[in-house]
Amino acid sequence: ERYLVKTQAEYFAAAEAVKAGDSIVLADGVWDDFEIVLSAKGTVNAPIHLTAQTPGAVKITGQSNLRIGGEFIVVKGLVFTDGFSPTGEVISFRRSKTDLANNSRVTEIVIDGFSKPDRYETDYWVGMYGKNNRFDHSFLAGKTNKGVTFAVRLDSPESQENGHRIDHNYFGHRPVLGSNGGETLRVGTSKYSMFNSNTVIANNYFERTDGEVEIISIKAGANIVRGNVFDASRGALTLRHGDGNIIERNVFFGRGKDHTGGIRVINGDQTVRDNYMEGLRGNGFSSALTVMNGVPNSPVNRYVQVSNARIDRNTILDSRRITLGAGADEERSAPPVDSTFSRNLLSSSGAGTFIEVDADISGIEFSDNRLLSGKVHSALAALMPVNTELARADNGLLYPVDPELFDVGVPRDLDPVSREATGPAWYPKPDGQTAFGSGKVIAVAPGEGTIEAALKRATSGDTLHLAAGDYIVNKTIFLDFPLTISGANGAVVNFARPSLFEMAEGGSLRLHNLTISGRDAPDNVGNSVVRTTSSPIRGNFVIELDQVAVTDLTVNRNFDVIVIGKSAFADAVTIKNSAFNDVTGVVVKANAETEDYGQYGIEYTTITGSAFSNIGKSIANIYRGGRDESTFGPHFTLSSSSLSGVGGKDAPALVLHGAQITEIDQNSIAASGPIKIVHTVGAPSTVISNNVLDSADGIVVEELNYSGDPRAVMRGNIIPKGAKQ
Amino acid sequence: ERYLVKTQAEYFAAAEAVKAGDSIVLADGVWDDFEIVLSAKGTVNAPIHLTAQTPGAVKITGQSNLRIGGEFIVVKGLVFTDGFSPTGEVISFRRSKTDLANNSRVTEIVIDGFSKPDRYETDYWVGMYGKNNRFDHSFLAGKTNKGVTFAVRLDSPESQENGHRIDHNYFGHRPVLGSNGGETLRVGTSKYSMFNSNTVIANNYFERTDGEVEIISIKAGANIVRGNVFDASRGALTLRHGDGNIIERNVFFGRGKDHTGGIRVINGDQTVRDNYMEGLRGNGFSSALTVMNGVPNSPVNRYVQVSNARIDRNTILDSRRITLGAGADEERSAPPVDSTFSRNLLSSSGAGTFIEVDADISGIEFSDNRLLSGKVHSALAALMPVNTELARADNGLLYPVDPELFDVGVPRDLDPVSREATGPAWYPKPDGQTAFGSGKVIAVAPGEGTIEAALKRATSGDTLHLAAGDYIVNKTIFLDFPLTISGANGAVVNFARPSLFEMAEGGSLRLHNLTISGRDAPDNVGNSVVRTTSSPIRGNFVIELDQVAVTDLTVNRNFDVIVIGKSAFADAVTIKNSAFNDVTGVVVKANAETEDYGQYGIEYTTITGSAFSNIGKSIANIYRGGRDESTFGPHFTLSSSSLSGVGGKDAPALVLHGAQITEIDQNSIAASGPIKIVHTVGAPSTVISNNVLDSADGIVVEELNYSGDPRAVMRGNIIPKGAKQ
Ligand SMILES: [Ca+2]
Ligand SMILES: [Ca+2]
Repeated sequence: ERYLVKTQAEYFAAAEAVKAGDSIVLADGVWDDFEIVLSAKGTVNAPIHLTAQTPGAVKITGQSNLRIGGEFIVVKGLVFTDGFSPTGEVISFRRSKTDLANNSRVTEIVIDGFSKPDRYETDYWVGMYGKNNRFDHSFLAGKTNKGVTFAVRLDSPESQENGHRIDHNYFGHRPVLGSNGGETLRVGTSKYSMFNSNTVIANNYFERTDGEVEIISIKAGANIVRGNVFDASRGALTLRHGDGNIIERNVFFGRGKDHTGGIRVINGDQTVRDNYMEGLRGNGFSSALTVMNGVPNSPVNRYVQVSNARIDRNTILDSRRITLGAGADEERSAPPVDSTFSRNLLSSSGAGTFIEVDADISGIEFSDNRLLSGKVHSALAALMPVNTELARADNGLLYPVDPELFDVGVPRDLDPVSREATGPAWYPKPDGQTAFGSGKVIAVAPGEGTIEAALKRATSGDTLHLAAGDYIVNKTIFLDFPLTISGANGAVVNFARPSLFEMAEGGSLRLHNLTISGRDAPDNVGNSVVRTTSSPIRGNFVIELDQVAVTDLTVNRNFDVIVIGKSAFADAVTIKNSAFNDVTGVVVKANAETEDYGQYGIEYTTITGSAFSNIGKSIANIYRGGRDESTFGPHFTLSSSSLSGVGGKDAPALVLHGAQITEIDQNSIAASGPIKIVHTVGAPSTVISNNVLDSADGIVVEELNYSGDPRAVMRGNIIPKGAKQ
Repeated sequence: ERYLVKTQAEYFAAAEAVKAGDSIVLADGVWDDFEIVLSAKGTVNAPIHLTAQTPGAVKITGQSNLRIGGEFIVVKGLVFTDGFSPTGEVISFRRSKTDLANNSRVTEIVIDGFSKPDRYETDYWVGMYGKNNRFDHSFLAGKTNKGVTFAVRLDSPESQENGHRIDHNYFGHRPVLGSNGGETLRVGTSKYSMFNSNTVIANNYFERTDGEVEIISIKAGANIVRGNVFDASRGALTLRHGDGNIIERNVFFGRGKDHTGGIRVINGDQTVRDNYMEGLRGNGFSSALTVMNGVPNSPVNRYVQVSNARIDRNTILDSRRITLGAGADEERSAPPVDSTFSRNLLSSSGAGTFIEVDADISGIEFSDNRLLSGKVHSALAALMPVNTELARADNGLLYPVDPELFDVGVPRDLDPVSREATGPAWYPKPDGQTAFGSGKVIAVAPGEGTIEAALKRATSGDTLHLAAGDYIVNKTIFLDFPLTISGANGAVVNFARPSLFEMAEGGSLRLHNLTISGRDAPDNVGNSVVRTTSSPIRGNFVIELDQVAVTDLTVNRNFDVIVIGKSAFADAVTIKNSAFNDVTGVVVKANAETEDYGQYGIEYTTITGSAFSNIGKSIANIYRGGRDESTFGPHFTLSSSSLSGVGGKDAPALVLHGAQITEIDQNSIAASGPIKIVHTVGAPSTVISNNVLDSADGIVVEELNYSGDPRAVMRGNIIPKGAKQ
């Protein structure tokens, strides 16, 4: 029977009635707050279908989700958008703890931005339970909250050795989360990692899946990851737990983007063959290839020693790093054993070390590899260099033209899945975001209220151009689209509310060639020029100040320039060629995530060519607490800038707590508090170079969880005699 | 002409056209997002009217406000509700910085709950500028965000010596703000306090205006505050700055409520006569009567010495405290001079000191006062005791029956304004809130999803009654109404999300006779049983646990029981007769307001008759940072409870930072971390009594801004030898 249903009541009546071979068809339209449950028994020849009347024309919105139980069910063609799941999953292959789905298929599903409002509230978009299920040709993009996008669960025997297939899906943009929990796909958990999963992950396209350090996290045995493409995606495919996985014929295009990684090998019996990497810029645990050191007799949640790894016929070109014996330390003292590394084709992206060796690698047998370029560790001095041209083949991949190298690197028949072949054909894949300045220009005249009036006409990407003169803004400008405000010389903006701008969902801000004065702000503690709204913001945003003068932020204490509040995340805060005078607070304040859960507020903070004078607190206060190692950031750069009268004896001129990558170069710092840098976890990279300071205690670097000397690189700084360096 | 307008466009056309004698009438209905501007010139005989078609039937909602400029304008009958102002004021007696209103009247206006969503975002509901304006017969209740409800501004000569009248208004419930900025009415600011305001504040009714320590803050000279009633309102009428104010014939009914104060006198030439106080429980700066010590040659924002104060014929009955020379310290060393205190009638509420003298009071001449009861400081031993019956007169006030005392205390003709005579007659004044258990009882059977299903039928005040058995809850319960969940013996609630309950706007929660287990919660850092939603919550709420057992909160780190997040405020969190076992986090966590702006999360935290064992962090962590002294709380009580294995060496069993009133009595504390109490500002009252501890370092009291010994009262505690006491 075919049930065409138009209401939730009709749906639930049909769901009660369906028998093998029946179909339920959801009528085209918007289904709001719809918690779909389908538990029924189809048969191999007569499955039960739940479909859209027209694929793509059935929108499930609001607080909605889908749970299926029973067997031989096929769900097809639904679009989840404009909402989020009220439970822990959007699509669940179980109705309840005891009613799992088996032999079922979910196909041509869209989950688009269906994220919980609070980025730190965890859920899965797909939870796969049971056995012999398939999830394919679906579109999953825009997950902004914590929790892996797609989880294969092995938490009961009924879900182990499951034979699931996950194929031809489009995993689209997953923005940087700024916390652990940003993985795109995970199989198993450490608790069940001794079990085999037997899951096949094939021919999926991962595009800009940048959530955290792991794109795919394999935590169970006997999986096959084959034929997937990773395009401009930060992080790595990680064989975190479980043995006997096969990783083959995958393609990684880093496209020169920061932190693009490849494959990380841990545990026994892993096969990594015929994979292609190009343009990767990751290092450390996110190298193009990382082979970890293990922990002797490792507990289940630590690092099992690599043994019997087969790493063969991979092509790694124009990439920054390969790391062997990675993470070697007192605890991780067991190097790889009984392993091979053969017929790989290798070339580096630059001048730094290309192949790093951090432990004894005598347990890896190297044979027939070819090195096109790159510095290698002395332990690998015998690696065979080769000089051959590369040519791009029809499959889009580079191969050596030298016929002798025919069987080095990936095979010629590698055929990466195309972006078009993934996801449902009827749902368009997104391009990039609206850029600043892509819209119209609105001319604004000086006066009280003229900016607010102009904003009523502005839309995404527009620019307000302010004529010279004085402006008074009586409202906080609520920014939910990308906006540029640019001034003629002599444009001065005054504001009468505690904040001039409030960043909200969808907002980004670029200010150019303006003066902003806090003269008219109310006598209130904690004013600011730009802040985030006090509700959580799902999407990441950008703030840019270029040639901006900020003055007179003095009416009360803690008058800041830019404040990133809780549950908000900026991809970048960039300040260049700007000047800040007379500020009682902090210039860039991103220390709201105080719980030490490894969360933070800004991925890249960049200050360059700017001058700071008479600043009450710091020019920046960036806090990323806790010991979690799942994030690449925060990054911080301060260069070619001058600080005078910033902070004081008990007020550091700059506070970086838990920044991962820091560069402080060519600044002059006078009559100011110290620069205070605290290293918390991981292997932070801090370079402080070519600065001129007037204080002997100008720079303080502290290690919280590392017992050696502080690991900052200090060079070329001019500091008065007696300075701590 | 009479313009009846139905749309905003029609309104603005009319506002453009109006001439003296014209009226604009807003059609009945809802006007959403309406920023009303009216600047026009009426005359004394032909004013311009802006009115409602039917008073009370014109609702201004959304992001709306009203600005008037010009002169002889009358605005009448509008209701502002379901929204908030997009600017710094809801009603402004100026159109712009240069276009002020004069000789204008705003009458029979309602502003009901028209508060900004974030409680810490500041605004005024009424900003009065210009001269000779009147605001009367209006209703202002439910302001939940920061910023004085009604501000008379003196920030330019055009607004000084203004002759404004503010009369017959109903100032209704202003909940405890938990921060500075909760005043109900303010005249002037310290910056302009040398100017006279000449404002009359008469016959207004203040009911439960509990925002902070000041109800009315007078910060300018020559005002008259006459005939107002303060009913069950925390805080005091404060003559903070400015000379020559007259405070007369006001009535204060404390009704025995905490922190109900009277009048605080600072500066020169103040008259405080014929005021009636009864049932006040404030002390310190919120005594029934407080006469401050001043700072010699005080800067404008500190305390000018009291001189020539006339404090005569006031009645102060059944009240806790009168304080003379209050705040005397090294800085405030100038005692009151040239002042009189005569014919006052005085009686105390209890056994403590009634009249406290903290400085030399030889500058106050005492004459013909009568003391009915109460302990007085020895400097006032000569105060004349008297023994007379009191009888309540027709005006509702108590008078001595002894005819000899006819001219002691307030005159017989004092006629307090009635609640009914204030506000617009057509708008009802609210009663109390829905109480727990006032609604229906819904029976719930054990199982997965049964609680969620029952909640769909629950409304304000209802009770879910759980039969014995196991429950699984798969959603976070979003609480936007008061709810009780009560169990039969043996009811066990498990939950599968990071939180079981999320407090939201309008929610309060009472749990009774239940077990709550975290066994099924996800493996996620920072889970909790009850948390506040991550958006700000306007309204204050209550959480009660009575006979609740909480267990198995162990799946990950920082699994807390109750977490109060940012921009949320609980009037009370009460835990009694409950048990907490195996918790990795904190039981009551209210340390989210980290900016040190004097903000905090819970007014009264009370734990009694409860047992705590194996708690990873503290039983409570309450943080109220900063040096602001505008709040009465936080209050904290721990009594008749046992702690075993709570916290540890580096994890205090209890953290109180900036609590104002603390009582820790009759507890046993073993194998636990220390109790850590930090005093920040003011005169915190900390009493630690009759506890049994097993650790010598069990209690640590620290002073942050006070140089003497820690001010905790410690008595009757049994602590091992060598303990710090
Ligand atoms: Ca992770
Ligand atoms: Ca105050």
